[in-house]
Amino acid sequence: MTQTPLRITTLKGLRCRECGEQYPAEARHVCEFCFGPLEALYDYEAIRGCTSRKTIEAGPRSIWRYRPFLPVVGERVIDVGTGLTPLIRSERLARRLGLGALYIKNDAVNVPSLSFKDRVVSVALTRARELGFTTVSCASTGNLANATAAIAAHAGLECYVFIPADLEAGKVLGTLIYGPQVMAVEGNYDQVNRLCSEVADRHGWGFVNINLRPYYSEGSKTLGFEVAEQLGWRLPDHVVAPVASGSLYTKIYKGFQELIKTGLVGERPVRMSGAQATGCSPVAQAFKAGRDFIAPVKPATIAKSIAIGNPADGVYALDLARRTGGHIEDVTDAEIIEGIKLLAQTEGIFTETAGGTTVAVLKKLVEQGKIAPDELTVVYITGNGLKTQEAIAPYAGETLKIEANLASFERALERARTLDRLDWQQTLV
Amino acid sequence: MTQTPLRITTLKGLRCRECGEQYPAEARHVCEFCFGPLEALYDYEAIRGCTSRKTIEAGPRSIWRYRPFLPVVGERVIDVGTGLTPLIRSERLARRLGLGALYIKNDAVNVPSLSFKDRVVSVALTRARELGFTTVSCASTGNLANATAAIAAHAGLECYVFIPADLEAGKVLGTLIYGPQVMAVEGNYDQVNRLCSEVADRHGWGFVNINLRPYYSEGSKTLGFEVAEQLGWRLPDHVVAPVASGSLYTKIYKGFQELIKTGLVGERPVRMSGAQATGCSPVAQAFKAGRDFIAPVKPATIAKSIAIGNPADGVYALDLARRTGGHIEDVTDAEIIEGIKLLAQTEGIFTETAGGTTVAVLKKLVEQGKIAPDELTVVYITGNGLKTQEAIAPYAGETLKIEANLASFERALERARTLDRLDWQQTLV
Repeated sequence: MTQTPLRITTLKGLRCRECGEQYPAEARHVCEFCFGPLEALYDYEAIRGCTSRKTIEAGPRSIWRYRPFLPVVGERVIDVGTGLTPLIRSERLARRLGLGALYIKNDAVNVPSLSFKDRVVSVALTRARELGFTTVSCASTGNLANATAAIAAHAGLECYVFIPADLEAGKVLGTLIYGPQVMAVEGNYDQVNRLCSEVADRHGWGFVNINLRPYYSEGSKTLGFEVAEQLGWRLPDHVVAPVASGSLYTKIYKGFQELIKTGLVGERPVRMSGAQATGCSPVAQAFKAGRDFIAPVKPATIAKSIAIGNPADGVYALDLARRTGGHIEDVTDAEIIEGIKLLAQTEGIFTETAGGTTVAVLKKLVEQGKIAPDELTVVYITGNGLKTQEAIAPYAGETLKIEANLASFERALERARTLDRLDWQQTLV
Repeated sequence: MTQTPLRITTLKGLRCRECGEQYPAEARHVCEFCFGPLEALYDYEAIRGCTSRKTIEAGPRSIWRYRPFLPVVGERVIDVGTGLTPLIRSERLARRLGLGALYIKNDAVNVPSLSFKDRVVSVALTRARELGFTTVSCASTGNLANATAAIAAHAGLECYVFIPADLEAGKVLGTLIYGPQVMAVEGNYDQVNRLCSEVADRHGWGFVNINLRPYYSEGSKTLGFEVAEQLGWRLPDHVVAPVASGSLYTKIYKGFQELIKTGLVGERPVRMSGAQATGCSPVAQAFKAGRDFIAPVKPATIAKSIAIGNPADGVYALDLARRTGGHIEDVTDAEIIEGIKLLAQTEGIFTETAGGTTVAVLKKLVEQGKIAPDELTVVYITGNGLKTQEAIAPYAGETLKIEANLASFERALERARTLDRLDWQQTLV
């Protein structure tokens, strides 16, 4: 935890995204009048007055360098070093796909728990503490559970985590280790989420993605801020990001717009494309069918972390893709596996199934001619492959077993080279 | 990969650590005359001339900001964003241990493969490419395999990795995914290492930790540089770091000394303490027995990544601990498990067995009065817990299984609270 003096309060309150009704900045996420989602409201003049490229660059090496854009008011933020993850200029993947300027935003190495969820949770728990919560909670497909448990442990907050019972082992262990109470619910994420709404009402706990959602979701804007800063204060031409609830995807764009609004980058159109797994693709289906509503689906895909059948921000994601000239596309589980391997073998980045989905959609959009070779394109990798080992292990290849002597090694090497030759000859047939 | 112009060559060659014989900067690691280990030799006047706090702070956000101190000569470095990992000021662990100024250097989130090995491999493969190698290799206990395979994939180098056959699943998958040839050797690390020396001689490959070792090992100095910079350009009073081969531990100190030598920090004594697992503690045993030689042991511990029975730099580690007033201590596998949980539950950092070892030794040294409460102490966490899941899973606790309705949740909550009360009452008995 670092303490930085906050000179000016930039958070003005909450506002309904549908009817515009305003509310104080409390633990509240739904409009009383129209049931629309609430969003944080800022004083952009105040932000403009206290923020420049220089003040940001001189700030902490974490998401908190963008603090005037984040929905907190006090002096104490929970800063565990979250954010400022690498933006890598791709050489080998770009060449493979035939792209001229491809960048990879790598949240597979985010701090502390190796996914973009560390961003939203750092913001949500900071705000939770400001609002007086001592018990925090979440409904999660895994990454959020890891982040909430880790950051709550760091901050000394009591923590309850709700997950679907069939989650990957790495995500369960990567939650339990921090010592929260973990509730494994017999059901899918949408059922977990509904249960948590009831628990939040009854127990008055701070659920990061329910009653704290207006604060929580703002954390994803930092994925937009950082990319712009890391590109030398300019916006990309095209973005490919995963679509689960639709929150991450839409908030990246909101981040870009806020930078334009406060004069930190020049105006420039950004095409926003979204990635879903075919086994849970309600937004992609609506996009392709030209519908303006989302028909909920029952998830059936290895990409569990993005398997939300009834996405809260689905219609906003749909609208954003259309407004900006992007696309929402989906890929099969087999393509997801190939996407994971492609990214690992060309760039040395091991991502989980969600990242495999995004890479596979990137590839598909390029092949369909929907991303032009000269567009400055950023692909968002949002989680780490060590968390979803069971999904990829059967397809990752095998070791060659040898004895601890040179002769045994040479025999194995000869076998491996022969197999490689055979593989190669078969590709020629 | 970024390209930064290198104005001045600071690498002068290699020098034998024992007899001082000098060699050109080739792929060579043993002195022809006395069989001592070779080390990179620099022109410190040249470094002083081209380096200041300002030039470093304006450099890349990776280990390459310290490039004049690293053994490379060309313009193209392999920069995947390795290094500049968080240095966290501990609140909760510090309080638990009764320390006034404890910092945690968190390489569990290093880029790309979540251990400090990303540092040494980034340096070794950059130098390997400069020396004309197209095939790179390593003998590894797991983390090095991950790093070599990942960074070789990024750089497009052919890669062979040698590991003991009994390695943790996460470390094997976290290597295979990048597409190298993986040789699983029936034997322990010391046997793997011996085999690799023979393979290096015969095939002329660049083994990062054998014939490229003088370059490779220098990468660990960045763990010293970064801590000093992150503390505001000052040295800590006390360091606790794991001792495997002894290389990391001694190079951190070398980093500190080079900063003093080039005027970047003020002189200040640093006590260097080292951590080993009791099941493989040849250096700790020698330290405690007052011996100045290392008796090799056969490893038997869950801390596989630091289980080197015949450590190459063991005597240097021993000497360093004694010269600086530090200690080399060891802890049992049960203490290692407790160390992992303690760090996770107080700081939200999930480390592997090596990190558990280091935290447990830190605790032990504090309890023995060997670290004073007012010493500015830095503990080095060198790898991620998701890689050694089988070691910790049985001890991490369990989820509470519930149905997707409020009544089922309330029953589970009641049970959990009763159990907590019972646990708590038992601690009072």
